[in-house]
Amino acid sequence: MPKGHHVVVVGGGFGGLQLVNDLKGAPVRVTLIDRRNHHLFQPLLYQVATTVLATSEIAWPIRQLYRGRPEVTTLLGEVKGVDASGKTVALANGQAISYDTLVLATGATHAYFGHDEWAPVAPGLKTLEDATTIRRRVLLAFEQAELENDPARRDALLTFTVIGAGPTGVELAGMIAEMAHRTLPAEFRRIDTRSARIVLVEAGPRILPAFTDELSAYARRELEGLGVEVWTGRPVTDCNAAGVMIGDEFVASRTLVWAAGVQASPAAEWLGIEADRAGRALVDEDLTAPGHRDVFVIGDTASVKQANGTPVPGIAPAAKQQGAFVARVIRARLEGRPAPGPFRYRHQGSLATIGKRAAIIDFGRIKLKGALAWWIWGIAHIYFLIGTRSRIAVAWSWLWIYLSGQHSARLITQKEILGEGASRLHH
Amino acid sequence: MPKGHHVVVVGGGFGGLQLVNDLKGAPVRVTLIDRRNHHLFQPLLYQVATTVLATSEIAWPIRQLYRGRPEVTTLLGEVKGVDASGKTVALANGQAISYDTLVLATGATHAYFGHDEWAPVAPGLKTLEDATTIRRRVLLAFEQAELENDPARRDALLTFTVIGAGPTGVELAGMIAEMAHRTLPAEFRRIDTRSARIVLVEAGPRILPAFTDELSAYARRELEGLGVEVWTGRPVTDCNAAGVMIGDEFVASRTLVWAAGVQASPAAEWLGIEADRAGRALVDEDLTAPGHRDVFVIGDTASVKQANGTPVPGIAPAAKQQGAFVARVIRARLEGRPAPGPFRYRHQGSLATIGKRAAIIDFGRIKLKGALAWWIWGIAHIYFLIGTRSRIAVAWSWLWIYLSGQHSARLITQKEILGEGASRLHH
Repeated sequence: MPKGHHVVVVGGGFGGLQLVNDLKGAPVRVTLIDRRNHHLFQPLLYQVATTVLATSEIAWPIRQLYRGRPEVTTLLGEVKGVDASGKTVALANGQAISYDTLVLATGATHAYFGHDEWAPVAPGLKTLEDATTIRRRVLLAFEQAELENDPARRDALLTFTVIGAGPTGVELAGMIAEMAHRTLPAEFRRIDTRSARIVLVEAGPRILPAFTDELSAYARRELEGLGVEVWTGRPVTDCNAAGVMIGDEFVASRTLVWAAGVQASPAAEWLGIEADRAGRALVDEDLTAPGHRDVFVIGDTASVKQANGTPVPGIAPAAKQQGAFVARVIRARLEGRPAPGPFRYRHQGSLATIGKRAAIIDFGRIKLKGALAWWIWGIAHIYFLIGTRSRIAVAWSWLWIYLSGQHSARLITQKEILGEGASRLHH
Repeated sequence: MPKGHHVVVVGGGFGGLQLVNDLKGAPVRVTLIDRRNHHLFQPLLYQVATTVLATSEIAWPIRQLYRGRPEVTTLLGEVKGVDASGKTVALANGQAISYDTLVLATGATHAYFGHDEWAPVAPGLKTLEDATTIRRRVLLAFEQAELENDPARRDALLTFTVIGAGPTGVELAGMIAEMAHRTLPAEFRRIDTRSARIVLVEAGPRILPAFTDELSAYARRELEGLGVEVWTGRPVTDCNAAGVMIGDEFVASRTLVWAAGVQASPAAEWLGIEADRAGRALVDEDLTAPGHRDVFVIGDTASVKQANGTPVPGIAPAAKQQGAFVARVIRARLEGRPAPGPFRYRHQGSLATIGKRAAIIDFGRIKLKGALAWWIWGIAHIYFLIGTRSRIAVAWSWLWIYLSGQHSARLITQKEILGEGASRLHH
């Protein structure tokens, strides 16, 4: 293949960036397309939603990351389809970008299991705007409660419901409880923020199902110690501006957050290939799309099995391993070497935090919980941030909160009519 | 007056906060009402608009500032009117708040001199949302230019026009020029960002009219050295999505920023008292509203003369001095002492920066320009920020930019349809 071999990468998440990083020095031109101008460190997005970190601390302009790589062109654009026979991708603005090799790393969004009408009242957490929307609603609920004279309406304003008890749901519920019980009480005069109810609802039998029974039970005790009501085995049957139906019980709650399910981006549809129930493209064991040797699908929008038959989880390390694997395949093809064997996922461990002092970690043989796990979690996340500036900024924000107890990013931005439950600006 | 004397302060800007700070220990209850949950350090807002600082570095939750003052109640609400005979203020949600003493410190917004239709295409800079709107438009213009194949449209995308050459206009134009000429060139592959035009338009005969001719001329040379075209004596006669009419010359420019005029909040209207042409309430020499001894008006929404007959400028130090003065008057009245004499404004100096290396300072007898002035400007602004956390965060952001040349807050947030000139989300 010629030096001008053109790799088009759609999506600047963990998988896409790892791929572009690992193609450094390869005889290729790279075009990286994303509909956002920034890479987002999603594992800490819940901390923006809960006023711990600022948006710019966990997001980086993608083109800045590749300023030293003249062969990498970054385009801000939304991909609307793929013409696999003509080897082009179509952008929403009408342009077509031709490729020699295409890598789709377009990720996933939240899914409402056929109830998209719940989206305006129960926002999910995938983008910076989602995080500032949740942050605004949580802060506005306390503000409106301070102004509210009717006790029933005040109670509904002070009831926060998080739907879904995976790591994101647990982290959100824990941090909202920390705010209500520890950060805010001294600042309100008419309400006692410690009377706020934080309800974490899970349809399955226990929280954090990716962890062992013991770590899951520990996390539940810790959450309850922070003041979170944990409701397991209770499916949500309705969400509206007044509250949430949990089984056949209605909980009046003005602030709902959705952390219950994900739906892959339409990469499989673009290619006309088979997808699993969550919309993830069923790819071959070298991560190519069936019938499309020059098209790879990686990360949250791909469905891949591990050697033991279980699916590769939709987490950052898996996406990064897939990006690195595809870079090796592309290099091998360009050099005429045999491609590396099938993609093998190595699970490095699972981490989740509960509030500001505890975490659980499962490294397989080693399992940790409590303060030590929390420190390891924090150091690992600072390590994985991009660049010295962000590492120091996040470390400083955390240190400040640790020492002072004061959250630094408690801003209500974007206009929202006071007294309205649902934002009219977002979505 | 009883210990329960109730001071209602509307507006948590520089004047309102100084007043509440200086009432510490006085026998009063204080209610501070703002339609935002945060105090904003407006002098650095242009740095959010130009990707230098993050929103949370220059804004603080108002109620957090008074967590240690149990007699201070903070309310998030929009005031819609004043009933001076009934001594209440009306909130937009229908509630009425009664007062014994009222202080209106409601500030100003940008004014389009009867051309409000220009607002969507030429946003001003008064709020955090304004700053992120301008930031988004500036960054999107470069992104869209990178995608654009038509040369005329690309040139219009790479032309940035700042209207009004006071300190804010000069600071915006200088920082956009720094971005185009120094920060961004290495990151784009299809366009040369150094070819961008930055046009600063001023209807008056020279830029920065508050400074001496010599400092103003120096600032102009520095701006031109950064690549800014400075057009003086040229009024803007039309703004639209395609560009700006300057006198009878049309400049195709997809990004316009308005820094040309301000309009006071309607405090004078609420009280039914006289206002100047910019809508500022004409107050008595003790800053009370004529005929309303218990109502004070301070800051950008008040019109006060200095001893020499010129108006007190609409800048942060003036608002703070007025807040401090009113606190002294209220204390004197409560203690039955004679009130302090008429309000006297002490001008401490004027500062403006040009780009990232130069500034001008006029302390009256001492006048400075260049790098030394820039360092004094920076240290003074860090000193005036609220709290250790912000001082360290801003100092770190500036140090990082100084060392690396990389701006840290280059995020495009809020959804905007690519290819549309004007935001449909904002305003």
